[in-house]
Amino acid sequence: MQTVEVVRIATCGPGDVTGLAALIEAGRLDPAAIVAIMGKTEGNGCVNDYTREYATAALAGLLGRHLDLSATQVERRVAFVMSGGTEGVLSPHITVFARHASDCGAPAEQKRLAIGIAFTRDFLPEEIGRGAQIRETATAVQAAMTEAGISAAGDVHFVQIKCPLLTSAKIAAARSRGKEPVTADTYESMGYSRGASALGVAIATGEAEPSALADTAVLHDWSLASAVASTSAGIELDHNVVIVMGMSTHSSSPYAVAHDVMADAIDARAVYRALDALGLDADTAAERIVNVFAKAEASPDGLVRAARHTMLNDSDINSTRHARAAVGAVIASVVGRTAVYVSGGAEHQGPPGGGPIAVIARC
Amino acid sequence: MQTVEVVRIATCGPGDVTGLAALIEAGRLDPAAIVAIMGKTEGNGCVNDYTREYATAALAGLLGRHLDLSATQVERRVAFVMSGGTEGVLSPHITVFARHASDCGAPAEQKRLAIGIAFTRDFLPEEIGRGAQIRETATAVQAAMTEAGISAAGDVHFVQIKCPLLTSAKIAAARSRGKEPVTADTYESMGYSRGASALGVAIATGEAEPSALADTAVLHDWSLASAVASTSAGIELDHNVVIVMGMSTHSSSPYAVAHDVMADAIDARAVYRALDALGLDADTAAERIVNVFAKAEASPDGLVRAARHTMLNDSDINSTRHARAAVGAVIASVVGRTAVYVSGGAEHQGPPGGGPIAVIARC
Amino acid sequence: MQTVEVVRIATCGPGDVTGLAALIEAGRLDPAAIVAIMGKTEGNGCVNDYTREYATAALAGLLGRHLDLSATQVERRVAFVMSGGTEGVLSPHITVFARHASDCGAPAEQKRLAIGIAFTRDFLPEEIGRGAQIRETATAVQAAMTEAGISAAGDVHFVQIKCPLLTSAKIAAARSRGKEPVTADTYESMGYSRGASALGVAIATGEAEPSALADTAVLHDWSLASAVASTSAGIELDHNVVIVMGMSTHSSSPYAVAHDVMADAIDARAVYRALDALGLDADTAAERIVNVFAKAEASPDGLVRAARHTMLNDSDINSTRHARAAVGAVIASVVGRTAVYVSGGAEHQGPPGGGPIAVIARC
Amino acid sequence: MQTVEVVRIATCGPGDVTGLAALIEAGRLDPAAIVAIMGKTEGNGCVNDYTREYATAALAGLLGRHLDLSATQVERRVAFVMSGGTEGVLSPHITVFARHASDCGAPAEQKRLAIGIAFTRDFLPEEIGRGAQIRETATAVQAAMTEAGISAAGDVHFVQIKCPLLTSAKIAAARSRGKEPVTADTYESMGYSRGASALGVAIATGEAEPSALADTAVLHDWSLASAVASTSAGIELDHNVVIVMGMSTHSSSPYAVAHDVMADAIDARAVYRALDALGLDADTAAERIVNVFAKAEASPDGLVRAARHTMLNDSDINSTRHARAAVGAVIASVVGRTAVYVSGGAEHQGPPGGGPIAVIARC
Repeated sequence: MQTVEVVRIATCGPGDVTGLAALIEAGRLDPAAIVAIMGKTEGNGCVNDYTREYATAALAGLLGRHLDLSATQVERRVAFVMSGGTEGVLSPHITVFARHASDCGAPAEQKRLAIGIAFTRDFLPEEIGRGAQIRETATAVQAAMTEAGISAAGDVHFVQIKCPLLTSAKIAAARSRGKEPVTADTYESMGYSRGASALGVAIATGEAEPSALADTAVLHDWSLASAVASTSAGIELDHNVVIVMGMSTHSSSPYAVAHDVMADAIDARAVYRALDALGLDADTAAERIVNVFAKAEASPDGLVRAARHTMLNDSDINSTRHARAAVGAVIASVVGRTAVYVSGGAEHQGPPGGGPIAVIARC
Repeated sequence: MQTVEVVRIATCGPGDVTGLAALIEAGRLDPAAIVAIMGKTEGNGCVNDYTREYATAALAGLLGRHLDLSATQVERRVAFVMSGGTEGVLSPHITVFARHASDCGAPAEQKRLAIGIAFTRDFLPEEIGRGAQIRETATAVQAAMTEAGISAAGDVHFVQIKCPLLTSAKIAAARSRGKEPVTADTYESMGYSRGASALGVAIATGEAEPSALADTAVLHDWSLASAVASTSAGIELDHNVVIVMGMSTHSSSPYAVAHDVMADAIDARAVYRALDALGLDADTAAERIVNVFAKAEASPDGLVRAARHTMLNDSDINSTRHARAAVGAVIASVVGRTAVYVSGGAEHQGPPGGGPIAVIARC
Repeated sequence: MQTVEVVRIATCGPGDVTGLAALIEAGRLDPAAIVAIMGKTEGNGCVNDYTREYATAALAGLLGRHLDLSATQVERRVAFVMSGGTEGVLSPHITVFARHASDCGAPAEQKRLAIGIAFTRDFLPEEIGRGAQIRETATAVQAAMTEAGISAAGDVHFVQIKCPLLTSAKIAAARSRGKEPVTADTYESMGYSRGASALGVAIATGEAEPSALADTAVLHDWSLASAVASTSAGIELDHNVVIVMGMSTHSSSPYAVAHDVMADAIDARAVYRALDALGLDADTAAERIVNVFAKAEASPDGLVRAARHTMLNDSDINSTRHARAAVGAVIASVVGRTAVYVSGGAEHQGPPGGGPIAVIARC
Repeated sequence: MQTVEVVRIATCGPGDVTGLAALIEAGRLDPAAIVAIMGKTEGNGCVNDYTREYATAALAGLLGRHLDLSATQVERRVAFVMSGGTEGVLSPHITVFARHASDCGAPAEQKRLAIGIAFTRDFLPEEIGRGAQIRETATAVQAAMTEAGISAAGDVHFVQIKCPLLTSAKIAAARSRGKEPVTADTYESMGYSRGASALGVAIATGEAEPSALADTAVLHDWSLASAVASTSAGIELDHNVVIVMGMSTHSSSPYAVAHDVMADAIDARAVYRALDALGLDADTAAERIVNVFAKAEASPDGLVRAARHTMLNDSDINSTRHARAAVGAVIASVVGRTAVYVSGGAEHQGPPGGGPIAVIARC
C-alpha cells in the first residue's frame, strides 16, 4: 500500500532549487520520501544541453545535504528526469513525486495514482539504440510496475524514461574497441536511444511483441509504438531511468492519472479527451491539474494535416525544438497554464507526428 | 464598386511560383487584377532573412512576364508582403488578392470583403521607428481605406503593413550624414519599425490620438495600440506597403472578414470568437476559411498567465521565432489547418504579449 | 587554345548582381564568354539555405537578359556554384570565370590557368551519396579536364563540384517507389553527397582506385580522399556541376593556380606553402591574389591538435558553420583579405579535419 | 612578496572538475592558495548560457569540500571568471592561478608574473552599463593592483573582469521601482556591462580620464578604450569580479606575461608581437606558453579590411559567437594550440573590431 504526493514547482533557472528547499524546510515534503523529480529546463534539449545535468546536480546536492548522502548516492535512489527545452510559452519547472507507505489502499472500487521507478545497467555506446537497450528497458519497466503495485498493463498511463545519447567521445571509444555505434551523428543518436527505449516500454506493456527487439525495428518499423511511453535522451547519464505512473487499488493518494494519444501536433481534441477522462473541463482544469506530460515531434513525413511543415529541413533550429514549441502551446491553450511537461522526440511513442499525453489531477 | 477574389496557394519553397502560374494559365486568376500578395516564407523572419526578398522577386518576375512589365513596375502596382518564419507547424504559402470593378455592391443590408492598398515614400534610416514613419503610415492607411471604399474605421478589420529595417550599411550611411538611427541593433530595429507602423494605423483608425506621433511613444507607451494592425519588417524595402482589409457595402465579393484580439499567446478563445463572428464553428471552419492572419510576440513582461517564459532570454532563437511557433500552433489547433499567416513582433498591435487575429471566409 | 579571365566581385546580398552588371555594361566582361561563377552567399550553408538558389536565379536572370536566353538555358551553359555560409570574417562575393578561344597558348615552357566545366545527369534521391553519384561525377570530371585542355592529373589543382542534397520531399518520393535513400536526415545527406562527389574526383584524378565506387566507402573509408576536390551540396539542383581548374600549356591566361592541403583547421603553414608555390609572400599576396578556394570541416575525431573541440556536439550551430568560421579566419589572417571562398564539409576532400586549398593569382 | 603558479587544465564538460581534483589530490596544487580560476565553457556565451554558472558551482563545490567552506564562502575568496563560447576550434579548459607568499621577489633587475583580485559590490539593474559600474570597477582594479604588488600602470598586462547582465526579471524589478535600465534587450545589456567595466579599467590604468565616467560614453565614444581590459558578462553574478595580471619585482613566480593589441579580427601579427615580447617564436611557443587571453568582436562598422562581414546582421548566430570562432582560430593557428581563452564582446577593449591579447609563458 502506498500514497503518492505530487508537487509542481516553478524554477528561476536550471540551478534553482530554492522552491523545493522551501517546501522541505517547511515540512511540506519529506526528502526521504522523494522517489522521482521530472523537470523542464531551459536548454536546447539537444546534445549540448548541460542544463539537464546542472539541474540534476543541484537537486541531488540539495537532497544529499538533507539526507546526508553524496550526490551519487542520491541519484541511485531518486529518478531524476530533466527534459531540456522550454520553447515558445513553456515555463521551466519541476514536478516532485514523493511516496509513503500507507495502511490503506484506494477508496472502495477505485484506483489512485501509483508510481514506481527502476534503473537499467549502464549501456555501452554500441548498445544504444539497439536490442540491448530495448531488452533492458522492458525488464526495468516491469520492475517499476511491480514496485508501483500495478499488475495490469491497462493501468499504466505514463512511462517516463531518461536515456543516454552518443557523444563524439563515446563514438570514438566504441570504435577504438572495434565496435560501430548505430549512428555517428550525435543529434541523431538521441532519436535512436529514445526509440529503442520506447520499444522497451511497448514490450513491457504488451503493445508490441518481443520481435520488436530486433535492432532493425528502431526508427524503421513505425507500426511499433507505445501509447504510454515518453522517452528523453540526455548527455548526463549512461543508463536508462524509468518512472512508471499508473492507477492502482493499492494506492490511497489524492491524485489520479489518465492518458490519451495526440494524433498530430495540433490535436487539441486529444487533450480535451484526457481531461474528460478525469472529469475535468477546460474551466476547472487549471485548478485541479497538477501537471500534463506529453511528447512532441515533427511528423516524419513532412506534413501536418496534409500541409508541408519545414521543421525537418531547418538547419538553424532542430525539429524537436519546433515540435515542443508547437505542442506545448496547443496544450497550454487548452489547460490554461504553461508550466507543462512537453518533451521532444516521440519516436515509437504514439503515432508518427503525434504522441502520448497524460494528465495528473487532484481527485 | 468592387469584387475581390482571394486564393491561398501552398508553396514548395520561397522561389516557388508554380501554383500561381498554373492558376493564371488556367484563366482562374487575371494577373492584371492582382493587387496584393501576402506570403509566409520559410526564412528566420529576422534581419538576414532573404527568403522574403527572393519570394517577392520571383512573384514580381512571374507577373511581369504576364503583364509585360519590369519587376520594378510590378512592385509599384502590387502590394507584396512576405513574412518570414514558418516555425513549428506553420506551412509556407501565399494568399493572392485580386480586385475587379463591379457593377454591383454587396447584397442588400450586407457588407462584403473589400481591399485597398497604398505605399509611403522611402524612409531615411533615421526616420525608421520615429514620428516620420508614424505620420506617413497614417496617411497611407487612409488612402488605402478610400481605395477600398471603406469610410468607417469600424469596418476596417486588418491592416497589413510591410516596413523596412536597419542594416549595418544603413546605420553607417545615416551616421556619415551626422544622423543617429533609433537603434544600432539591426534585430531591434525591426521592432521599432513595426511599432511605429502600428501607431500609424492606430492614428488612421482613431484608436490613438495624433499625440502618439511622438518619437518617444514607440516601444515605450504600451497603452497605445491598434487592434487591427499587423506589421512586418523586412530587409528588402525602404518604404511602407499598406494593405487594408475590411467590410464594405461597395463590394460584391463572396468573402467576409472579421477580427478579434488575442489577449496572450495561448488565447484560443479569441480565435473561436473570430470564427463565431463569421458564423463558423470548429467543424466547418477548415472548409470555409480562406486564411487566418495573426500577430505573435513574446510578452514583454516575461510572463504568460503569470508563469515565466524564456523567449526573451534565449540567445539562440530570437523571441519572434518562438512566438510564431506558439501562436501558429494554437490557431492551427482551432481551425484545423496549418497554412495560416502568423507574423512575429506585435509591438503596439493588440495588448503586450497578444495581438490581432483576422479571418477571411467564404460567405 | 584558350585564355581565361577571372574577376572577384563583392556583393551586398545574395540577390545583388549590380557589380557583375556594371562590368558587363562597361565592356570589361563578355557575358557570352562566362563559363562559371562561384559565389559565397550569406545563408546558413545548410539544408534550408535559399540564398544559393536565389543568387543563382539572379545571376542567371542577368546573363539571360544579356544573352537573350531563359534562366534555364543559362544554367545549362554556365556552371554556377554558390556556397552558403560566410561565418566569422568571411565576406560575400562572387568569382566570375570567362573563357575565350585564343590563338596562342602559354608562354614557352610555361603553363597557365585553364578551366573546364561539365554536368552530370540528374540523380534519383536514392543515388545520392552512393556509387551512381561517384561514377557519374568521375566521368564528368574527365570531360571537364578535356575541355580545359588538361591531360595530366598532376595539372589539376582544384575541382569544384556542386551537388544535390536530400529533402523531406525527395526522401518521401524515393520511399513511395520502394527505394531507401542513404540517410533520412536531410543535413546528413549533404555530407553523403559531398563525399560521393569527392570520391568521383579522386577516381578521375587517379587518387583512388575504382574500387572506391563501392557504396560503403562513402563516409566510411577515410583513407580515400582527393587533394583537389571541393564539393558543396545545395537544395537548388538535382545533378552535379563540375568545374576543373588547372594549369595547361594550351592556355594563355594571365593567371596561375596552385594548391596545397591543410592538415587541420589551423594549418596556416599550408596556406603559406600554396602562396610560395606561386611565388607570393604574405606582403605581396593581397595585391596579386584573385581568390583563395578552400574546404573546411570539423575533424571527425573531435580533436584539433589533440585538444577536444565542441563543433560536433553543438546542436545550435552546425559543425560546417563553425569550421568555415575558423578556417576562413586562418586563411584571411595569412592573405590579408576576407573575401575568400571557404566552403564547409570536407568529406573525402583532403585528410579528416583538413582540406584542399587552392590559390589563383595574377602571374 | 609572492609567487604565482598557473596551470591550464582541459575539461570534458562544464561540470567536469576531475582534472583540478586530481592535481589537488596529488599535492600539486594547494586549494587554499588558489585565488582565481578562468575558464572557457561550451555554452553560447550569451544571455541564457548556464554553463558558466554550472562550472562555477562545480568548481566552488570542489574547493569547498577541500577547504570546508560553503560554495558561497569559496566564491567570496576566489575569483571565478567563466567565459562561455568555444566556437570553431576553441577547446574548453580552465586556467587556475594559485598564489603563495614568498620570501624573495623576482631575480635581480627582473619582473615576474603577479596577480591580484578584487570584487565590487552588487549592482542594481539600472546601474549596469552606467557610471556607477565604471566607478566601482575603477576602484576595484586599483585594489587588485595593490594586492598584486603592481604600482605602475605600465606593468599591468591584462585585467580580466566578469560582470553581470540584465535579464527580463532584473529589468522588470528595476521598472517596478520606477527605474529604467540602460537597455531592455538582454543580449544588448551584455555589451553595456562589458563596456562600462572596460572604461573602469581604462580609468584605473590612466588610459582614460575620469570624464569617461559619463553614462553617455558607454558604447558611444569609441575613442575611449583600454588596451589591457578583458570583460565578460554572465547571468550568474550581480557584481564585478576583477583579476589583474601584471609584472612585478615583488614576484618570484616562474612565469612572465606580455600583451599587445589586435587591430582587427585577423591581425595575426599582433599575436606574433606578443610572443616576441616574451622571447618566443612560433616553433617554441606551444611548449612554453601556459595560455593566451584575448578579446574578440565583430567590427561595429561592418567591415574587416574594408570588406563587408555579415556578423552583425545574422539573426541565427550572435556576432560574439562569430567573432570568437574567427579570432580563436587565428590565435590557434599562430600558437599551435586550441585551448586558448578568447572571449567575445570587446567594447572599449582595444580598437573597434580588435582587442587586447595577452600571453603567459614559462620563463
